[in-house]
Parts: sequence; structure tokens; C-alpha cells
Amino acid sequence: MRTITLVLVFCFTTFLPKAQTGTVSAVRSFVQQHRDTILSEFETFLSIPSIAKDTANLLRTADYLLHVMRGRGIDHVQLLEADTKNVPPVIYGDIKTPGATQTLIFYAHYDGQPVNPAQWAKGLDPFQPTLFSNALYKNGTPIDQKQLKIIQDEWRLYARGASDDKAGVMAIINAYAALVQSGQQPTCNIKFFFEGEEERGSPHLGEIIEKYKPLLQSDGWIICDGPVHQSGNKQLVFGVRGDAHLDLTVYGPKRPLHSGHYGNWIPNPALLLAQLLASMKDENGRITVKGFYDDAIPLSTAEKKALAEAPDVEKQLKEELGIHKTDMPGLSLGEAISLPSLNINGMASGNVGPLASNQIPTNATAVLDLRLVPGNDWRKQQQKVIDHIKAQGYYVIDHEPTDEERLQHDRIIKIIVDDDGYNAQRTPMDWPLAQRIIKAVKKTTTTPVVLQPSSGGSLPLYLIEELLNAKPVTVPIANYDNNQHAENENIRLGNFFEGIVTLASIMQM
Amino acid sequence: MRTITLVLVFCFTTFLPKAQTGTVSAVRSFVQQHRDTILSEFETFLSIPSIAKDTANLLRTADYLLHVMRGRGIDHVQLLEADTKNVPPVIYGDIKTPGATQTLIFYAHYDGQPVNPAQWAKGLDPFQPTLFSNALYKNGTPIDQKQLKIIQDEWRLYARGASDDKAGVMAIINAYAALVQSGQQPTCNIKFFFEGEEERGSPHLGEIIEKYKPLLQSDGWIICDGPVHQSGNKQLVFGVRGDAHLDLTVYGPKRPLHSGHYGNWIPNPALLLAQLLASMKDENGRITVKGFYDDAIPLSTAEKKALAEAPDVEKQLKEELGIHKTDMPGLSLGEAISLPSLNINGMASGNVGPLASNQIPTNATAVLDLRLVPGNDWRKQQQKVIDHIKAQGYYVIDHEPTDEERLQHDRIIKIIVDDDGYNAQRTPMDWPLAQRIIKAVKKTTTTPVVLQPSSGGSLPLYLIEELLNAKPVTVPIANYDNNQHAENENIRLGNFFEGIVTLASIMQM
Repeated sequence: MRTITLVLVFCFTTFLPKAQTGTVSAVRSFVQQHRDTILSEFETFLSIPSIAKDTANLLRTADYLLHVMRGRGIDHVQLLEADTKNVPPVIYGDIKTPGATQTLIFYAHYDGQPVNPAQWAKGLDPFQPTLFSNALYKNGTPIDQKQLKIIQDEWRLYARGASDDKAGVMAIINAYAALVQSGQQPTCNIKFFFEGEEERGSPHLGEIIEKYKPLLQSDGWIICDGPVHQSGNKQLVFGVRGDAHLDLTVYGPKRPLHSGHYGNWIPNPALLLAQLLASMKDENGRITVKGFYDDAIPLSTAEKKALAEAPDVEKQLKEELGIHKTDMPGLSLGEAISLPSLNINGMASGNVGPLASNQIPTNATAVLDLRLVPGNDWRKQQQKVIDHIKAQGYYVIDHEPTDEERLQHDRIIKIIVDDDGYNAQRTPMDWPLAQRIIKAVKKTTTTPVVLQPSSGGSLPLYLIEELLNAKPVTVPIANYDNNQHAENENIRLGNFFEGIVTLASIMQM
Repeated sequence: MRTITLVLVFCFTTFLPKAQTGTVSAVRSFVQQHRDTILSEFETFLSIPSIAKDTANLLRTADYLLHVMRGRGIDHVQLLEADTKNVPPVIYGDIKTPGATQTLIFYAHYDGQPVNPAQWAKGLDPFQPTLFSNALYKNGTPIDQKQLKIIQDEWRLYARGASDDKAGVMAIINAYAALVQSGQQPTCNIKFFFEGEEERGSPHLGEIIEKYKPLLQSDGWIICDGPVHQSGNKQLVFGVRGDAHLDLTVYGPKRPLHSGHYGNWIPNPALLLAQLLASMKDENGRITVKGFYDDAIPLSTAEKKALAEAPDVEKQLKEELGIHKTDMPGLSLGEAISLPSLNINGMASGNVGPLASNQIPTNATAVLDLRLVPGNDWRKQQQKVIDHIKAQGYYVIDHEPTDEERLQHDRIIKIIVDDDGYNAQRTPMDWPLAQRIIKAVKKTTTTPVVLQPSSGGSLPLYLIEELLNAKPVTVPIANYDNNQHAENENIRLGNFFEGIVTLASIMQM
């Protein structure tokens, strides 16, 4: 008993700000008391392998969400389906609050990034959620059945989607449920909007919004996605970067060749790709593609001020990530992600490790991720990179090279231009609804709430402005060290449970 | 019957030079008549997955060879085992020829390069030998049971080791068997020497040779490995390049990061590796590592003359391989492989294709293959590359970086220095035994025999000179378009069968 009491005290002192309203306190107590059932439902949700493009499993996930939402008494629960075939649906539901004059739409997405299970830590299955006492990199150990009696803040739940963004879906649903079950009501009308194509660039989100426009009228959107500030403080984010991709393949010999018999004479595509990628950035990580930074609108004075006020976490981050010198010297992280970026998501040629063999590979490939800021047009940004590649002497095609093309050109590259790109979006911090959201979140914590002009990450939030004439504010809840998009994705349970409290407070703003 | 007769005529006209000795003719007839049984045994041999370092399967392969050699009446068939544990043995056997004054050792190796089955053509299993009517890239189709009655020259057998170098092992054994079974005898004493560690750099070959020195006395070695000339002509090769490797890993953040939240600020290891690799060669493929070409001894006048006399296959090769411009402009293939080389065998970071995700990977890795020519020392050559890497600002380590190292250095690279490297070897073309071997091979063909000063490939033949004071000459038999070391390795059956004839002629020189 002694141990349990101590642990409970520890949990509460971590969470409870010294002063708080009764409402926040009641919701937090409810969540505290129902951690086991909330967690158990979350684990079931995570065990459905709903990665982007896997429509069959995304539909299973959608069915599960319909069931969960109806169980919570949410009205008009339904699938919003695109007219295009085989598109994972949006899951919609709403709550009409008597007397309320404003409507908020709460957004999260239920699809996750692709997984390469071989890259996950030994024993981890991306679709068998597994609890550890802490992050693996902080030497967390597996949680056994006996420990489950007291579910702790520092525990991590490992699974694809654990933080990005099934946590968001579950936190929104539970925020509403916790309000109601602790004897309270929202003060606004609520609409639930859970997307299934975010991780592939939301190619049909516009189509679905257009189709269901009357249903999707609101005063503002709350986007629950992404991590809180690296300081651990809660954070509100007023914009997102745009995103676009390029898939590059350069060619060597038509068949793989013995590196002894032909090395030095037949060009090696891995070297060609290395030279091409190297030409895109200087040694300080500054992009050398002509005009790459040209269209970016500089930060406003208010945005610069907000960035300056955020806790300085750079030393902490560099230590945690094992980095001595960052790119873009002289720029803070916040300033760096306020610029358009170019990142190599992956590159491959031939084999490495135990499979390596003495060969000249037939091709070499890389995937580039371009992030955009206000002022950038995503197609123009892609074109700048393509023009740069052409300027390096490449003949650009969109198919495997024909024999004729091979014999006519020194350097051939296939570029697959991602059609699912989109532009950045930014909501002004002085928008009145934004000010009320800030206030609602501040109510839940005694530490400063960090206000970010923009996330480094991307969501197609421009659609909300363009098609619905509404504005979004992002309320992230995940820990920043969540490995989202990569192997060993995880959520810190304290973040998940406290996220429910944050969202419930917004529902009562 | 008509078809069969035509095919037989075709086979014979392809093979039979207009003038030949009775011996060559008798051996060729024997091989022609026994293609089916020779092929069937070869297929059984190929179906044992004997890739480098897989000691258990290499021992199974050795057992099979013991069985085959004893069945052919070869004497003293035995395993030559290193004192070091877990080393695949050499398989030895010999034939004492009454009255013979000279002894030749016939060398081949029974281990193959590693395989990545996923890279092989659909339906091909590297260890289920499969016949096609021609090379896959020449639109070959699978051979069915009915067609097996007439085994054709243009057929290809696909399997790991099909050409490199189980074909060599089988051709040597069958050359002796064909001589005897066509009623003839060798004119020299023969020793059989089949190695099991060639594809990992023969790290214990020296140890085995030292241990069995008395057994391994000879006048010369015949090395059956590698491809014939690209013109299809038979070829003798008087040297090999040396070989050494470097395994490079550069580091990014300790855990994979979301490319949106951190891209532009946390250095991307794929970009760092690209920049490093790009720094090693200029745009013409000339190596820019300081002093890389310095120690190489230039070709002699006789060697230059031999190169100039070889059929010009560059246009044909460039067309077949789909290459517009070769590296090292102004140099022929023969001249290019007479220089030391640096090849990227493979490189990898993050994921590409359907598994690509928006992340900054934690590391990027590449495997470099260095080939050496006479004058080069393999450790010095490795060191030149390491010094080049240091000159690019890298802190070089041989382990995963510690947290302390990460925080002290901008650029960290782990270099695994392969210990199994070795130097080049070259036998003078005017060595009397070499002249007799040339004569014996010329007897088997009416087209010119190509004399190459050196193969581009590598074998640790320096050991034969250093430890046994003997000299080797290489007699390759495989087709040049055999994909050795890569996916879809194959042998053209005409090459395999005619290789038996070539080797039998040398046994009777």
C-alpha cells in the first residue's frame, strides 16, 4: 500500500498546477481514475494496422471508431466518403450543446506512416502496442501485468500511430466523454472529424470537404496532431508548413556488373546520386538550389517575438540527440523551420552490411521531402529542384529509360513528382478565437504555454481556409521524443492523459 | 528427327574449329554426348546454398565435392583444413600421370557471393537452378522438360555460383573425367584445389597453403575463375587486381526525427554521406583521393601491346549496358582496369519506395571496394581513403559513437577496415609454361585467344608466388554477361561445356 500511495502522490504533483478551475480539476480526476480503461481501448485501436494507403485496414479502423464514438453518445456518427473509389473515409460525429453559439471542429487522423518492422527495436511489433517504464533510449524496461495497477506518467506505449495520430483521435473522444461523465457539458457545439489519408498527403480531403460543406460549417478548427514543446510545456501552434516530395532514380549499367571487371570505367549510379544530392546543400546545410528561399514570407514582428519567448531548448536537444553542430548556423530551431527545407528521407543503391557484394549497381534512388512556408507554391518549389537537377547535366524522364535514351544521354534521372503536395497555412495569433483557445489551455497548467507561429510539420490546413473560410489552431499533445514517422514510435502516457484535459478545457472555453 | 539433326549440326558448327587435334575433338564429342548428366550434376551442386561465411552449408558443399571427385577416380581426395576453427576447407585430390615431369594445380572456388533474393527476377530462387532459352535481358524463356532432350549452347542456367565459381569447379573435374572416359590421359600430374573462402577475401588461404606446403608443390597453377572476353573469344589472364574494403557509417541524430519538425536544423546523415562520397571522385570518375594512383606500376610495352591486340568491344559493351559515356574518358576498359579503383558497392540511409517516410535518418552507410594493381599496398591504399575522409573534417572511429564523442565532433564516421585485403599479382606473359598454356588453348579454337595482362577482378594469387614460389595463369570460362556478384547470376551453357574442352587441352599440353 505504501508504494501505491507514494506513486499516486507523485502522479498528482506532476500534473496538478497549484491553481486551477473546478472544471479542469474534475476532468483531470476522472481521467486519473479511469486510466486503465482509457488505455485499454487505446491499445485495441493501435493494434489495427492502419497505415497510409492500406485501405482495407483503414476501413477496419474506421469501423472501430464508429463503434467507439456511438458508445460515447456522440450524435450523427457517420462516414464522410469521397466520390473517388477506395478512399479511406473521414469519420464524423457531432454534439449540439443547448444554448451554444459557437461551433468547433476537432480534427485528428487515424492513419499512420508506413513501417519497416525490421528497423524497430528487438521484440517490438508496430501493431502490438507494448508498454515500457520509460523511453527505450532512456533505458525503459517492459511493464509486466502486476505493475498495471498504477499506470504512470513516464511510461511509454510503443506502436505505429501511438503519437501520430491515434493519440489525437482518442484524446478528443475521451475529452468529450470525461466532461460528460464528470457531470459537465461543453460550452460550444462540437464536431468530430477524423481523417484517414493525412500521412499520404490528404489527396482527397478537399473532395470530402467540398462534398460535405454544409455539415462542416464552424467557427474554428482544433487540430490535435504533433508534439508539445521540447521543454515539456504545452504548446499552441498557429501554422503548418506545406509539403511536397520528389522521388529520384539515377541509372548505371542495365545489369549489375562485377566491380572488379568494370569498376573505373562504367559509371556507378551510387556515386552519381551522391554527387547530385551533395550539390543541393552547402556544408552548412544551406540549400543551394537556385531561388529556393526566394518566395518565403519573413516572420512578422509578433511571430519573431513569440519565437524569442519560447523556452530555449537547443542545448538540451543537442545533448539528447547527440549533435555537436546544427545546420544553418546562427539560426534557432524555430527560425530554421520558418524557412523552406529539403530533406533526404532515404537513399539506397546496391546492398550494405552482410548482403554487400562487389558490384556496380544498376541504379540509385532517393526520396526528397520539401517543406514549404507561407509564400511558397509547392509545384514551383518542386520545379526549382528539377531545374537544379537539369543544370547538373541530367536528362529528366518520368519512366524507366529506354535503350535509345540510355545511348543518347550521359546522365539520366527518373523523377516521380508527387501530386499530393500542398502549401503552408498560418493563422494570425491575434484572431479572437485564438485568444480564447490560448486562455483555455493556460487554465490547465502553471507553466508557460508556448506559442509557435508554425509547426515544422505539415497538414493540408490551407483547405480549411480556402474551402470553408474557417481558421485552424493546432493543439498538440504528444511528447516531442516520440519517434513519429520512424521506427519505435511511442507516446508518453502522461502526455496522452494530460492531452485529454487540455482538449476538454477548450471544449469549455 | 529433322529438328534434332539441325540442332546438333548447329551446336557442332558453333563449337568446332575447322582444324583441331584428335584429342580436342574426342573430348568435345564426349562432352557433347553427356551434356545431360554433366548438367544434372552441376544443378545438384548449385542447389546447395554455399555462400561466403555460411560455414555449415559450405561443409555440405565440401562433402558433395568429395563424393563427386571420388566417383571420378581422383586419388587422395581429402579436406585441407585450417587450424583456425570454423574455416571452410579446401578440397584436394590428385592424379599421378606415369612418366609426367610437370605438375599443374587446377584451382576454383565453391563459395559464392551473398544473395538478396528480393532483388532476383520474379520466380528465380538463387538456390534452385533454373534454365532459360537465353539471357533474361535477351528475353530468354523458361525451358520445359520436353526441350531438355537437346541442351543448347545459348541456354542460361540461373543460380548463385552458376558462373562464379561452381562452373569452374565442375569444369575442372569434368575436364579430367572427359579425358579419361574418351580413352585418353593427361600429360602432366594434376592436383585439384577447390577453395571455400574466396568470396570473403580468402582470409585463411595462406594458413592452409603453409600447412600443406609439401602437398602443394607444382610447376604452375591454372586458375579457373572469371569471364571470357566480351567478344566471346577465349581468354588467358596473367594477373589479378588486389582487393580491400572499407565500411563507412556517418551519423545523424541518435533517434530518427520527423523531417518537418527538425529538417533544416539537425544535420541529415544521408546528405553528409553523399557529400563525402561525392568528394572522392571528379565528374569524370577520376579518383580525387590524394596519391591514389601514385604507387601503381605502369603497364609494360608487352602488356600494352596485348591490350591493343584484344578485340575492340567498347561500342558493343556500351550498347548492351545502356551507357552513353564511360568514366575515365580517353582510357579503354583494359587501360582503366589497369589502374587502382574505388567503387561504391552499396549505400543506404532511411527508406525508399513504399517504405519511405518523412524522417531524418539516424545514420547513413556505404561499402567501398578498392581494387589494387602491382605497386599498390592494400593497407596503404585503405589509409589514403581514410586520410581523405579525415581531411573532409571527419572524426574517425571504429565503434558506435559514444555520447561524449557525439557532443565533441561535428562529423563522425565509423570506418570498419576490412582485414582480408590483399595485393595484386601478375605473371609475365613470356614465362615458358605460360607460352605452353597459350598454345594448348589456341589448339581448341579458330578465333584469336585474347591475352589480358590482368583481370579487373581479384584473387589472392600473390600467395602462390610468396608461399609456394609458383606462378598462376587464369583460364576463365564463363560468359562475360553472367551477373556474377549480383542478382540473376547465370552461365551460358555453351561456355560451361566448352570450358571443359579448354581445360582438358591444358591437361594434355
